[in-house]
Amino acid sequence: MDNPQEKLRTGELKLYALEKYMEADEAVKIRREYIEEKTGANLSAVGKYTIPITKVVSRNIENMIGCIQIPLGIAGPLSVNGEYANGSFWIPLATTEGALVASINRGCSAVSKAGGADVRIFQDAMTRAPVFAAKNIAHAAESIRWIEENFAAVKEAAEKTTSHGKLIRISTYTAGTSVYVRMAYETGDAMGMNMATIASEAAAKVIEAATGLRLIASSGNMCCDKKPAAINAVEGRGKTVSAGVFLPDELIRTVLKTRPELLIEVNMRKNLTGSARAGALGFNAHAANIIAALFLACGQDAAHVVEGSNCITTAEAVEGGIYVSVTLPSLQVGTVGGGTGVACQNECLKLMDCAGDGKAKKFAEIAAAAVLAGELSLLSALAAGQLGEAHKELGRG
Amino acid sequence: MDNPQEKLRTGELKLYALEKYMEADEAVKIRREYIEEKTGANLSAVGKYTIPITKVVSRNIENMIGCIQIPLGIAGPLSVNGEYANGSFWIPLATTEGALVASINRGCSAVSKAGGADVRIFQDAMTRAPVFAAKNIAHAAESIRWIEENFAAVKEAAEKTTSHGKLIRISTYTAGTSVYVRMAYETGDAMGMNMATIASEAAAKVIEAATGLRLIASSGNMCCDKKPAAINAVEGRGKTVSAGVFLPDELIRTVLKTRPELLIEVNMRKNLTGSARAGALGFNAHAANIIAALFLACGQDAAHVVEGSNCITTAEAVEGGIYVSVTLPSLQVGTVGGGTGVACQNECLKLMDCAGDGKAKKFAEIAAAAVLAGELSLLSALAAGQLGEAHKELGRG
Amino acid sequence: MDNPQEKLRTGELKLYALEKYMEADEAVKIRREYIEEKTGANLSAVGKYTIPITKVVSRNIENMIGCIQIPLGIAGPLSVNGEYANGSFWIPLATTEGALVASINRGCSAVSKAGGADVRIFQDAMTRAPVFAAKNIAHAAESIRWIEENFAAVKEAAEKTTSHGKLIRISTYTAGTSVYVRMAYETGDAMGMNMATIASEAAAKVIEAATGLRLIASSGNMCCDKKPAAINAVEGRGKTVSAGVFLPDELIRTVLKTRPELLIEVNMRKNLTGSARAGALGFNAHAANIIAALFLACGQDAAHVVEGSNCITTAEAVEGGIYVSVTLPSLQVGTVGGGTGVACQNECLKLMDCAGDGKAKKFAEIAAAAVLAGELSLLSALAAGQLGEAHKELGRG
Amino acid sequence: MDNPQEKLRTGELKLYALEKYMEADEAVKIRREYIEEKTGANLSAVGKYTIPITKVVSRNIENMIGCIQIPLGIAGPLSVNGEYANGSFWIPLATTEGALVASINRGCSAVSKAGGADVRIFQDAMTRAPVFAAKNIAHAAESIRWIEENFAAVKEAAEKTTSHGKLIRISTYTAGTSVYVRMAYETGDAMGMNMATIASEAAAKVIEAATGLRLIASSGNMCCDKKPAAINAVEGRGKTVSAGVFLPDELIRTVLKTRPELLIEVNMRKNLTGSARAGALGFNAHAANIIAALFLACGQDAAHVVEGSNCITTAEAVEGGIYVSVTLPSLQVGTVGGGTGVACQNECLKLMDCAGDGKAKKFAEIAAAAVLAGELSLLSALAAGQLGEAHKELGRG
Repeated sequence: MDNPQEKLRTGELKLYALEKYMEADEAVKIRREYIEEKTGANLSAVGKYTIPITKVVSRNIENMIGCIQIPLGIAGPLSVNGEYANGSFWIPLATTEGALVASINRGCSAVSKAGGADVRIFQDAMTRAPVFAAKNIAHAAESIRWIEENFAAVKEAAEKTTSHGKLIRISTYTAGTSVYVRMAYETGDAMGMNMATIASEAAAKVIEAATGLRLIASSGNMCCDKKPAAINAVEGRGKTVSAGVFLPDELIRTVLKTRPELLIEVNMRKNLTGSARAGALGFNAHAANIIAALFLACGQDAAHVVEGSNCITTAEAVEGGIYVSVTLPSLQVGTVGGGTGVACQNECLKLMDCAGDGKAKKFAEIAAAAVLAGELSLLSALAAGQLGEAHKELGRG
Repeated sequence: MDNPQEKLRTGELKLYALEKYMEADEAVKIRREYIEEKTGANLSAVGKYTIPITKVVSRNIENMIGCIQIPLGIAGPLSVNGEYANGSFWIPLATTEGALVASINRGCSAVSKAGGADVRIFQDAMTRAPVFAAKNIAHAAESIRWIEENFAAVKEAAEKTTSHGKLIRISTYTAGTSVYVRMAYETGDAMGMNMATIASEAAAKVIEAATGLRLIASSGNMCCDKKPAAINAVEGRGKTVSAGVFLPDELIRTVLKTRPELLIEVNMRKNLTGSARAGALGFNAHAANIIAALFLACGQDAAHVVEGSNCITTAEAVEGGIYVSVTLPSLQVGTVGGGTGVACQNECLKLMDCAGDGKAKKFAEIAAAAVLAGELSLLSALAAGQLGEAHKELGRG
Repeated sequence: MDNPQEKLRTGELKLYALEKYMEADEAVKIRREYIEEKTGANLSAVGKYTIPITKVVSRNIENMIGCIQIPLGIAGPLSVNGEYANGSFWIPLATTEGALVASINRGCSAVSKAGGADVRIFQDAMTRAPVFAAKNIAHAAESIRWIEENFAAVKEAAEKTTSHGKLIRISTYTAGTSVYVRMAYETGDAMGMNMATIASEAAAKVIEAATGLRLIASSGNMCCDKKPAAINAVEGRGKTVSAGVFLPDELIRTVLKTRPELLIEVNMRKNLTGSARAGALGFNAHAANIIAALFLACGQDAAHVVEGSNCITTAEAVEGGIYVSVTLPSLQVGTVGGGTGVACQNECLKLMDCAGDGKAKKFAEIAAAAVLAGELSLLSALAAGQLGEAHKELGRG
Repeated sequence: MDNPQEKLRTGELKLYALEKYMEADEAVKIRREYIEEKTGANLSAVGKYTIPITKVVSRNIENMIGCIQIPLGIAGPLSVNGEYANGSFWIPLATTEGALVASINRGCSAVSKAGGADVRIFQDAMTRAPVFAAKNIAHAAESIRWIEENFAAVKEAAEKTTSHGKLIRISTYTAGTSVYVRMAYETGDAMGMNMATIASEAAAKVIEAATGLRLIASSGNMCCDKKPAAINAVEGRGKTVSAGVFLPDELIRTVLKTRPELLIEVNMRKNLTGSARAGALGFNAHAANIIAALFLACGQDAAHVVEGSNCITTAEAVEGGIYVSVTLPSLQVGTVGGGTGVACQNECLKLMDCAGDGKAKKFAEIAAAAVLAGELSLLSALAAGQLGEAHKELGRG
């Protein structure tokens, strides 16, 4: 194309449309240069990406101008005793927060020396909840009765839109004339949000036609996507996973440099009572740090850190030591789709043998074990009064 | 160094210690090769980073093995009428979620055509809350009295540790014998979490010595860092910001392709009533998507998406149109420190003239305006029943 | 008995045991006199109760010393169009808060003039959730699998303890090694908490024996009885009921002395947005006032005001007027058992033809309609700026 | 008056207006007979009240038809070591729930044998929060600035309306254009809700005039009255009180019939972890039971059981025993005004020397100690596996 910058300036060419007329890398370059010109900014670092982007510009982003490079560290090995993940894993973590990888690494060492983390998945379903308007309370009640009695028809409509998704359950809720229909799907190894959205829209049309309910929005916030919500914390969304480890007294002393009763006390006064007093939905020390770094490394949706980091951490005395656990009710992960196919992210998944089909549950188990390692490490540091010191040495100062 | 891989294998050399013996890039390469050997994984994409990392390995990460490259898109221009941000801004967004940049872009267009977003910052304070143990209820009460009467002494101890931070307020809470001392700091243009931690630890020692309270942990979860918590949603943490825009009826019809009363209804049944029914702390459509993409682009702490995305979105009828707003009570951002100095991230901040000293409030205002654009776009799409279609076309399929 | 006061003083006779040796009224009198002597207090008003108490002292209270007399007012008639309650009802309300009965009365008038409240029950189940300790995460997962696969056995054990209760559903949750088994019962016309407790304890023993889980407490707070909890607000507990009414513009103007758009605005800014901003679980104006007064009048458990008053109130514009509704997810009521048989309370139930078998759902529908009346009245008063004036005139000053 | 029933039937006489034409008792009788006639119900028990009602019909209720009589039991003595309550108290409890008084009584015995409950009040302020509408975000910000800078003027306006109330603090919050102004008052010995409402309305008018904000409602639900809300749980409303007691091992074994570590475990798995998992705002066993029974006995507002029962219960190991505590952040009580002057209720207050001026804090301390007794007793019963048995024996069966 001749003189695209000029055409962008005149509006003859739309900034978002460049990929229609040229190769992806060229389009990205021209767009970046246009932005540099408009703003006077230098975007050279952003422009020096090295990943192939032909698929990226059609699947993962619009208006691309380059890439952000986020440092990637490694923690581990971490020993995991799950139903899907069994063995020793290196954990890739992308972050710019100093001290984080080192902290998780210390936790991995403690968990592994203790024999590894027990992990189990308790539930697995992605949800989407359209909201409808009923004419009045009686109409809402009738409509819900119809939905309950016609699950098969709704399921059929939903599943026609997808080869992988299965509608496994519907829960209905009302607030006055607003009717929320929460549909829970098995989504295979995809995180499944888009699949669930498309299927739910098809289902919603069937419901609308049969009941006279008026569809207001394909998501009515009882899904509840990317907001902290008790419905997810209580009922789960995505994968509900727990990881736990027994730590003998000796190991607590030598590896974690603290005492069992102090770990229990920190957990009780901070993670349980402190969170209770703060009106929190999260009862943990810093699960979000681990989830965020792992999600960035592995091409997960970064906005799902909100729900994925929901976590209750426990520590209890048992004969000869303590048992520490994390429970994540709403961990949303995928090993296909989304950002999982982007070059670096795909390598990180492969590093744990978690890329592609049949790997989502394995990945979820490893994620829970990593959170356990991170929690254990920070709780120990707090118990030993070391938090500030760690940051002074490794952190941003 | 001769044969570092062999030394790593024998344990003579520690994986985390490589940077002590060689240049950063070399250390990262050797570590990556070691991990490749141990796991059989190919980490070539991860290894092809192009940013300078000498400072990164000392400030932002440990055990570095390369970088993750995340696609960066651009939305805008977005017109902002704030106290710190005034003018038209291009918004950098790093994401792998198809359709997101396009959606925000559409919102930017609507907001700008409507004259821009009004934005104001209502509060600005970073908090840290150590937890102490009192001997009993009477001791807790006495100790709190001491803290209240000796604010100056506590402040002095805290501020000795920092050149930028100011302790502006202390709030005390108890749960039985657990005493939580929530200290609120002005932290200049840094996000300020580490600064607040270090200062609070110094303050805690003074409190401990004077009251006989026993320090349990330098963070007692009433801070409340990286957990969704009502204390932050209600009282704020970091910056409390609102952005709003008046949209004339005509613009809603032509640009957003929907009707005012439908936008209001979607907002009421989804963002307000739906979230209420779900027991949510977030009353918005997808603030986390915008916050996450902007935070990744600009070197913010990705785990702060949890609190930063807390948002109430409103839409109300006014003469001749509607007024739409977003309120973010706990937006934690910095323009110095953390990941803001990493090459690509720093360019993104500069793109908005938001890098370095004196820019944090400006950045916060732009962030709020961007969330407004994103909310407006998704609400419009939902109102027009277009959500699924948008994903089918642009998304991951 | 000779000289019981002397025997009480010496400890020969226990204060709680008086009913074993004498008629109820005599026992109450002696106990009251003993307390008067010990404290110097005059309890003559308390002693002038007029209800028969022979059954009361064995079923409703221990250590009885008399009665509290609470003023009873009447509101109505209230027109109700439910599935169980159809017709016009007078609402008995016991309270000492001036202005409350008058306010509800005004609401009854408005609802009735508008044709009455549509009411529907969406769900009906009382829950109890024992908590168990598992040995570790794997044990928790196995045990839950056993429970899911052996619902019939658990149900059989639970139902052996009761002639009325049916175990209809079990939901399991974990937090680390803590396993919560939430059992949902149909309890006929009893509120059903005790029935559910006893049945759940029998069920728990079966679970304990089969799984090796250790029973920690027959209630693990996921029930969640008498605490405000999202699990109840979202999933319901007791009866989930909605009531709604269409109010034509004219009626709003003449009866409620305000305008439709003001009512909607008050509801949006106060009940929805204000509650959201406050981190509230209740999205209403004063549902607790109506529930408390009705519960006291009708012998319900006063501590259930906590959950019973959970309510979302909505107001939306419809052609020619507005539709106002209340949704109560966790209304716990009974028309047999508890305080329903005490003389005055029983009369109040009978006043609405709600005493005894087959009446609990009817009573729940009337309760929801009464809450609607109360909400409507206060919202109208607020919309008209009359709240303070009403209190000055009628209230406590 | 001649033939009032006929005049009521024809509408010549209004049901609510009877007190204007005759003595209170006569009016109540005629109204009751009218309702009996209209409904066919027998209200003889309701009619046999014995309290004087001349003041009651003008202050506490409208449309009175009689009284509800609620059985009153006594628990204690309970030893309290507070700043305002010091000594041994008998606790009056009105309830129809069998087993409750006996349970609290057992707790009183344990607390007293252990030397009594330490009690302290940490805060004391009643709040009311009008909501205003701003024109836009900028207007909201300006208006808040005005309020902050003109506290004295707002305070003056508020305090002109009351001889007892003092406006001690204002906190402002926004959600878009909705501006919430939370005013905190010292209200002397009155619970103070009406006082705060009237004062806040006067203050609101000053704010409205000066800022151009439009007053929407004198309560905007950030007060937050009679709804479970994090703002109250976190920041307190009414009185924030804690009570605690040290229990030696021996006493736990002999009086509470259980073991220290079991009590701690029940508290952790049920009150802390279970409530956390349920998304609860209450972290206690049954605080609402004690608060409800005490409030009914003492003329408190029964709807305040919602907030008053908010409670965190803790149990921790200490040298030689355990320390158990309750913390009630939002206990709203009064010893003047409201129902405190009604005959029986006033006697109950006097029984604890808590009637009238200068007694509200004393009453609050006793209430907290009573909750502690109740919590301790139920936790012990659960720990010993006795809950069901207790109900079978004493309860409604």
